[in-house]
Amino acid sequence: MSHPVVVTLLTDFGTADGYVGAMKGVIASRAPRARIMDITHDIAPQQVRAAAWALRQSSATFAPGSIHVAVVDPGVGSERRALLVKANDKLFVVPDNGIASWVEGAERARAWCLDAVELHRRPVSATFHGRDIFAAVAGHLAAGVPAERCGTEVARWERLPLPEPRRVGEAVEGEVIHVDRFGNLISNVTVEMLSPDRRWNVRLDDIEIGSVQRTYADVSAGELVAYLGSSQHLEVAVRDGSAAQHGGRVGSRVLVEPGARG
Amino acid sequence: MSHPVVVTLLTDFGTADGYVGAMKGVIASRAPRARIMDITHDIAPQQVRAAAWALRQSSATFAPGSIHVAVVDPGVGSERRALLVKANDKLFVVPDNGIASWVEGAERARAWCLDAVELHRRPVSATFHGRDIFAAVAGHLAAGVPAERCGTEVARWERLPLPEPRRVGEAVEGEVIHVDRFGNLISNVTVEMLSPDRRWNVRLDDIEIGSVQRTYADVSAGELVAYLGSSQHLEVAVRDGSAAQHGGRVGSRVLVEPGARG
Amino acid sequence: MSHPVVVTLLTDFGTADGYVGAMKGVIASRAPRARIMDITHDIAPQQVRAAAWALRQSSATFAPGSIHVAVVDPGVGSERRALLVKANDKLFVVPDNGIASWVEGAERARAWCLDAVELHRRPVSATFHGRDIFAAVAGHLAAGVPAERCGTEVARWERLPLPEPRRVGEAVEGEVIHVDRFGNLISNVTVEMLSPDRRWNVRLDDIEIGSVQRTYADVSAGELVAYLGSSQHLEVAVRDGSAAQHGGRVGSRVLVEPGARG
Repeated sequence: MSHPVVVTLLTDFGTADGYVGAMKGVIASRAPRARIMDITHDIAPQQVRAAAWALRQSSATFAPGSIHVAVVDPGVGSERRALLVKANDKLFVVPDNGIASWVEGAERARAWCLDAVELHRRPVSATFHGRDIFAAVAGHLAAGVPAERCGTEVARWERLPLPEPRRVGEAVEGEVIHVDRFGNLISNVTVEMLSPDRRWNVRLDDIEIGSVQRTYADVSAGELVAYLGSSQHLEVAVRDGSAAQHGGRVGSRVLVEPGARG
Repeated sequence: MSHPVVVTLLTDFGTADGYVGAMKGVIASRAPRARIMDITHDIAPQQVRAAAWALRQSSATFAPGSIHVAVVDPGVGSERRALLVKANDKLFVVPDNGIASWVEGAERARAWCLDAVELHRRPVSATFHGRDIFAAVAGHLAAGVPAERCGTEVARWERLPLPEPRRVGEAVEGEVIHVDRFGNLISNVTVEMLSPDRRWNVRLDDIEIGSVQRTYADVSAGELVAYLGSSQHLEVAVRDGSAAQHGGRVGSRVLVEPGARG
Repeated sequence: MSHPVVVTLLTDFGTADGYVGAMKGVIASRAPRARIMDITHDIAPQQVRAAAWALRQSSATFAPGSIHVAVVDPGVGSERRALLVKANDKLFVVPDNGIASWVEGAERARAWCLDAVELHRRPVSATFHGRDIFAAVAGHLAAGVPAERCGTEVARWERLPLPEPRRVGEAVEGEVIHVDRFGNLISNVTVEMLSPDRRWNVRLDDIEIGSVQRTYADVSAGELVAYLGSSQHLEVAVRDGSAAQHGGRVGSRVLVEPGARG
C-alpha cells in the first residue's frame, strides 16, 4: 500500500467562519485517506505576495507528490483562471494570480488551467472557489486523478516579479521582501551573492548594522544584527526584539558592501 | 479495511493554553486511526450563534459518518445537558445550548443525552467537559461505539431561533445573521425566496445597494454589492473592502424589492 | 500493523510565515504515516513558561509513544543544547531551556542531548532549529528510530522552577502561575493541599473571593469564584467574565484559609 497523500492548505480565510472547514470536508470526502495539513489561514486578507512567500517557505520541505492548495484570491469570480502548477513533482492548486511564483522549481514548472469542470463541485459558487474548485480538484488529485485530467495545459501563467538585487561595483543593493512575525526582515539578497572569503557590511536604509554574523546569538540583546537566514537569504533582526520596530518594512533598502578579505 | 473516521473540532478555546491539545489527546488515545481536523478555535468567547453558523458551514461538506465536536459552552458545569445529535448521518457532539441548531438535517435529527457516564473520562472536571465528556465520547464513537450506547434518546433539545425573513407584498424583509472575517454580511434571505425571473433590488438599512449581482467582481473596487453567496444566502459585501465598515452588522435590516421582470 | 505515531507541534512561530508548514514537511517526508497535530503556534513570542504550561496541559492526555515537539527558543543558535526527554513513555523534542520541566513524569525522566547530527537536516541553519533539528529528529523518531540513537544521554537538564506554595499555619499561600484565554487565573495550589473535610476560603491579593465552589456555575454572572480546575489546581475566575480584568495576573498572591470543618 502506498503512502497516504499529503494535502496542505494555505488561505487568508481565518478559521472562525467555517470556510476552511468546508474545504477540508470537500477534500476528505473525495480522498478519505489524504493527510490534510494546515499551513496557515492567517495571511492578511488578499495579500498575495505574503502568501507566495509562505507557500515557498512551507512547501520546500514536503516530498514529491505532495499537493498544496493556496487560496488568497482577490479576483475570485472574475475572469482570472484556476490553475494546477507542477513544480519539482509537487502539485500546487491555486488561482492564477502569481501565488505559486516563488515555489522551488517554478521556472521549469508545467501548468494546467482547471477547465475540467466535471471535477468541480456543482454548482460552483461565484465567491467560494476555494471550496468548489480548488479543494474539489485537490481532493480528486489526492484520490489519484492525474494532473493531465484536470484541464488544459497552458504555456503562460501569472508570475509575481521578485525584486532583483543589483550589483553596484563590489556592493550588492537589495531590499526587504518579507517581514515575519518576530519582526525579522528578510531581504532578496541570497547567500550565493556574497562570496564567503570577504567580510560583508550591511546597511538597512540609513542604519549601519555591521558585518554579517552567523546568528542573532552573536550580538547582545536589543542589538540589530544581519545574518544569512534559514531560507538562504540575508536577514536583519534584533536579538530578543523586532527589527520591524526599528523602521524596517517591505521595500526597505538593504545595502551590502565588502570589507576586508577574510 | 474501512476508511478512517473524521473527527472535527470547533471551540472558542483558542489554542495557546493547551486545552484543545488535551482534547486531541483524549480522542487520539481512544481512536488512534481517527482523522482529527481543526475547524476553528477562534470563535469569540461564548458566542454560541457564531459557532452555530460556523458549524453549519463547515459540516455541510463532510461525508456521512463524520463526527463533529463543537464546544462553545457558557453553561459548562451547570445543569445543561451534553448531547449527541445525528443529522443526515453525521454526528454532532455538543452542549445542549443550540450550537447544532442550524446544521443540515437538524429538523429531522435524532438526539441522545450523553448520560452513559462510563464513556466519560474519570473524574469529570466541573469546568472542562470539552475534554472529559465531549472529546471522550467522540473518541469512543470514532472507535466504533454506536450512537445508541452513548446515552438516552431525547425528544427535545435546545434550538436557536434563526430569524425568519418575511414577505411584505412582493418584497422580502430579512436581516444580517453573520458577519465574516472579510466584513461580508450574510443575511437570512435565501435563494429560494427570490424568483430568478425577476430583477431584485437590495437595501441595507438606509443604504441603496442596487440589484443582485453574480459576484463582487461585477462591481468596481470599493463599491457595495449584493449577491447570492456560497451558502445560498443573499450577502452584501464591498469589493476589495469590508461592508461591516459601512455600518452593517448582525441584525441590520436587508430589504429585497422586485424590479422589472427579467 | 501498529498504530500510526502521533507527533504534536507547539511553537511561538504563528503560522503566517510558513515556518510551521516547513516543520510539517520535514516530519511528513521522514514519517509519511505519522499523525501530525497542532497544539498551538500562538504562544506569545519567547514566553517559555507559558509554553511549558501548555505543553503540560496538552501532553497529559496523549498515549505512551506519542512525540511532542515544542519549540519556544529564545536561545536558538547559542550554546543551549537540543534535547530529547522521555517522561512516562512520551517523547519530548525540545530546546534545553526548561520547556519540558512540568510535563507529567518530568522528575523521573531520561534525557538525551541531540548530538547525533546525522539525524539533522543538512545544513543546519543557525536560526531555524525548529525545522533543521527538532522536526528532523521527531520525524526519525516517528519513523522508528529509538531514543538512544538520537544522542548522548545526559544526567542534568534545565528545569524551570515552579513556585512552591507554602503552608502558613493552617493556611496555604500560593500564587497565580498561568492566565488563560478566558482570563481564568490558575494557581500553584493543588487539590492535594486542601483537605476535603474543611471549608476553604480564598483571597486573591486583597480581594475576598469566598469559599471554594465546585464550578463557576455556582455563582452569579459577573461574580468572582474560586474552584478546583480541570488540571487539579485551584483557579479563580469570573462567571461569564474575566478574572484577569479584576487585576489578577501571573504572580498574584492566592491565600487559602480554612473555615469551619465540613
